[in-house]
Amino acid sequence: MMGAMMIAVVGGEDPSPDALAAAEHVGREVARQGCALICGGRGGVMEAACRGAREAGGHTIGILSGPDRGDANAYVEFPIVTNLGYARNAVVALSADALIAVDGSYGTLSEIALALVYGKPVIGLATWHISDDAGVEDKGIVRAGSPAEAVELAVAAAQGGRSRP
Amino acid sequence: MMGAMMIAVVGGEDPSPDALAAAEHVGREVARQGCALICGGRGGVMEAACRGAREAGGHTIGILSGPDRGDANAYVEFPIVTNLGYARNAVVALSADALIAVDGSYGTLSEIALALVYGKPVIGLATWHISDDAGVEDKGIVRAGSPAEAVELAVAAAQGGRSRP
Amino acid sequence: MMGAMMIAVVGGEDPSPDALAAAEHVGREVARQGCALICGGRGGVMEAACRGAREAGGHTIGILSGPDRGDANAYVEFPIVTNLGYARNAVVALSADALIAVDGSYGTLSEIALALVYGKPVIGLATWHISDDAGVEDKGIVRAGSPAEAVELAVAAAQGGRSRP
Amino acid sequence: MMGAMMIAVVGGEDPSPDALAAAEHVGREVARQGCALICGGRGGVMEAACRGAREAGGHTIGILSGPDRGDANAYVEFPIVTNLGYARNAVVALSADALIAVDGSYGTLSEIALALVYGKPVIGLATWHISDDAGVEDKGIVRAGSPAEAVELAVAAAQGGRSRP
Repeated sequence: MMGAMMIAVVGGEDPSPDALAAAEHVGREVARQGCALICGGRGGVMEAACRGAREAGGHTIGILSGPDRGDANAYVEFPIVTNLGYARNAVVALSADALIAVDGSYGTLSEIALALVYGKPVIGLATWHISDDAGVEDKGIVRAGSPAEAVELAVAAAQGGRSRP
Repeated sequence: MMGAMMIAVVGGEDPSPDALAAAEHVGREVARQGCALICGGRGGVMEAACRGAREAGGHTIGILSGPDRGDANAYVEFPIVTNLGYARNAVVALSADALIAVDGSYGTLSEIALALVYGKPVIGLATWHISDDAGVEDKGIVRAGSPAEAVELAVAAAQGGRSRP
Repeated sequence: MMGAMMIAVVGGEDPSPDALAAAEHVGREVARQGCALICGGRGGVMEAACRGAREAGGHTIGILSGPDRGDANAYVEFPIVTNLGYARNAVVALSADALIAVDGSYGTLSEIALALVYGKPVIGLATWHISDDAGVEDKGIVRAGSPAEAVELAVAAAQGGRSRP
Repeated sequence: MMGAMMIAVVGGEDPSPDALAAAEHVGREVARQGCALICGGRGGVMEAACRGAREAGGHTIGILSGPDRGDANAYVEFPIVTNLGYARNAVVALSADALIAVDGSYGTLSEIALALVYGKPVIGLATWHISDDAGVEDKGIVRAGSPAEAVELAVAAAQGGRSRP
C-alpha cells in the first residue's frame, strides 16, 4: 500500500470562464476515478477543481504557499500549510502521481517544469507551450483535448507509474 | 470552513515499547475526536500513531522528508512527498492545530521548537524538557500524564485556536 | 546597503561545448561588472560560470540541492547546503537581482518560471522558448545574442531594480 | 576544495545587552579565524555577529526567512533570500561547519535541534538547556564560557569535520 492515488491540478488564480469550467470538470472526473486531488489550495483553477472533486465525493488536499490555513479555498479538505512561497510547487509536483495543467501563468509553468524534472507525467489542457533551444516543441507535455481526456490520460499514466517495480 | 482539524503527532523512529503503545493510543483518540492526524509519515512513533488513527476510522497524512512516496508507513492515507529533508518539520508544525510530542530525539525537538515559533499549542508526553538561559523550565510545553489526556489537551487547544477571530 | 548585487546563472549539467564556453564567458563578465554570481552550485553550466567568475576575481555562491557540501563544484566559494531538492531553485531565483539562462533542461525551465513568478528579470541565451495558451511567445524572457550582451542586459535590469523605491 | 569554512551564529532578535556584546565578539573572532559567518541575516544577535565579522574583515552570509532582500541587516554581505519562513533554519544549520548559539528564543532552539539532527557541532553560550525524557542533560550541546572559547571550540570542531574522509 502506498496511499491514495493523487492527481494534481495546477492552474492560475485568474482564469477564463472556460478554464474554470474545465477545471471543475477535471476535478469531478478525478474524484469519479477514485483519486484524491492535490493542488495549491487557493482560488481560480484550484478552487474550481476542488469544488468539482468534493461535489463528486472525492478527497482534496491543498498545499498552501503562505502561513495561514485561512488562505485555502472552501473546498480544500486537508490544507497543508507550508509557508514556503512558490517553493511549495515542488511539493505539489512530487506528491502527485500525475499532473494536469489547466490554463495558468508563470506559477503554473513552474509546476509543469518541476513535475518534468521529477519525472512525473504532465497532461496539458489549453496551457503553456514550451520548446527547447533545438526547437523541439512541447517536450514532455501530453496534450488533451477535453477535461475527460485529460483525466483519462492522467489516471492511465499514474497507474503505469504505480505498476512499475 | 477551514478544512479538517488536524493534530500532529511527532516522535522518533526508534521508540521504546511504552512510547509505541502510547503513540498508538494517541492516534486512536485523535481519530475518535474527529480530527485528522498529521505526522512525518515514517516509522516508529509516526507509524504507531497512524495505525491507531486508521483503526479508529480516522484520516492520516504523512509529510515525508524524502523524494519517495514509498517511504511512507503502511497507515498513511495521504502521503505528501516534500523532498525537503528535516525542513519538512516546519510543514508538519504549521499544518497542525496542535502538536503532541511522544518521546523522540533531535528531530522531535526541532518539531517542538518550530511549533512554538509558529505559536502552535504543544503537548508533551514523556518527551524533551527545555529551559531557557534564565532557567525557566518547559516554556511552552504543556505536559500530559497519559495518551488520553494528551489528546484531550490538544483538541481543547485546537478548538480554542479555531474559535479565535 | 542591501548586500552585493547578485546575478544568477542557470543551465544544465550536461551542456554542449558552445553552452559551456558561453557560461564561462558570462561568469567572467558578471565578475568584471562587480556582481556576485549565484547558481545551483553543481556541474556543467554552473561550474563553467563559477570558473569564469572566480578567474576574474569575483565571488561565487552555490545553492546546493542535496545535503552535502561536497556536491559543490570546485569554483563555488560559498556553498549553501539546502537539502531542498529542486525547491532550491526558488532560492536561486529569489536571491538574484537578475537571472541569465544558458541552454538547460527542465530544471532550468523551472528556474526561469520561478524567477518570472517572483518578478525577476530573466535574460535568455540559447535557452527555452515559452508561449502561453494565447500564443504569446517568450513572455517575460529577454533574448540576448551573446554572453556579453546577456550580462549587460542583466546588470542594467538589476540596477533598475535596485534604484526603484 | 570545498568552499569557505563557515560558522553559523544563531540567536534572537531581541537579546540582552550582554548577549549583543557576546555576539559581536563572536563575529569578530570568527572572521579573525578566517571563517565566513552565516546566520539568519536579521537583527539582534544576527546583526551584532555580522557587524563584528565585517569589522574584522570577514565575509557574512544571511539566510533570510522572508521574500525581501531588504530584511537583511546592514552587515550582511551576501543575502540569500529564501521565503521559506523558519524552514530556512534548516539551511543555516546544514550550511555551517559548526554552529554557535547565543541566547535566543524558540527559533534558536529550532536551529540547535536541526543542527543536531544533521550531526553538526553545536556550541552554546548562555543559551537553551535541553534534556531528553531519560533526564540526560544538554545532550549534544558543548558549553562555552566566553565568546573566544565558543569560537575556539567551533573552529576546532569544524576542522575536525573537514579532515574526516
